[in-house]
Amino acid sequence: MPEPRTRRFDELAIGDTAEFEVAVSPDLVDTFALLSGDHNPLHTDDAYGATTRFGGRIPHGMIAGALFSRLIGMELPGRFATYLSQTLSFRRPFSLSGTVVVRGEIIHISSGTRTITLRTEVVQKEDRLCLVDGEALVHLIQ
Amino acid sequence: MPEPRTRRFDELAIGDTAEFEVAVSPDLVDTFALLSGDHNPLHTDDAYGATTRFGGRIPHGMIAGALFSRLIGMELPGRFATYLSQTLSFRRPFSLSGTVVVRGEIIHISSGTRTITLRTEVVQKEDRLCLVDGEALVHLIQ
Repeated sequence: MPEPRTRRFDELAIGDTAEFEVAVSPDLVDTFALLSGDHNPLHTDDAYGATTRFGGRIPHGMIAGALFSRLIGMELPGRFATYLSQTLSFRRPFSLSGTVVVRGEIIHISSGTRTITLRTEVVQKEDRLCLVDGEALVHLIQ
Repeated sequence: MPEPRTRRFDELAIGDTAEFEVAVSPDLVDTFALLSGDHNPLHTDDAYGATTRFGGRIPHGMIAGALFSRLIGMELPGRFATYLSQTLSFRRPFSLSGTVVVRGEIIHISSGTRTITLRTEVVQKEDRLCLVDGEALVHLIQ
């Protein structure tokens, strides 16, 4: 199993970043539909999707939520994270078959509460357009 | 496959609610770890979890994100939803084996933009405590 990074509160600084890439596929979208129970045809039915302005079915925007969970829990800060809050703005649909880049950057650190604020985003790798962005608030237990 | 509800913009009113229950299990948490790539031991390793203040491993808070996707895409409003944004505050950990109630209530309607704002929450069924809450902004295509 992949191991999370082990940066502690005192090792973090404003401007620290992390990023990773994820391949999106119809299988990933189908798995998310099953896990979430969100079988909206915009995400599951190509024929229905083709009748919309998107021209085909599109991934659930909330896949970004799962990817932000990985960003916080595995990368920045990693092991010692307690996830307090997340905002998500769904700006464009993910490509059904493509690669996304998930990024975080520390924009605020509060010593009094041992919390960090990160700007988080998911970008389509092929055209660099922002798909989802938001902010995360994370407490560190160490 | 379950079909989403088909309420249109003009059929919605402030105060409208929807709710459903979901059984949480170690299998669901393991599936979310695989899908998201978040293998933080707080969620995947009972022995590690037992060393924390939680006394055992706990589900990923972002499972609530997936459940809110179902709430919006299947229940309120359902089929005609375009999900614009979501906030999530992770207030308490889910039980690893229990039932959660997912709820939404329309708190604002904007005719100019054909959008609705919902208060969304996940509650532990057994003790009625709020686990995750937030707000969703949703556009309706019909």
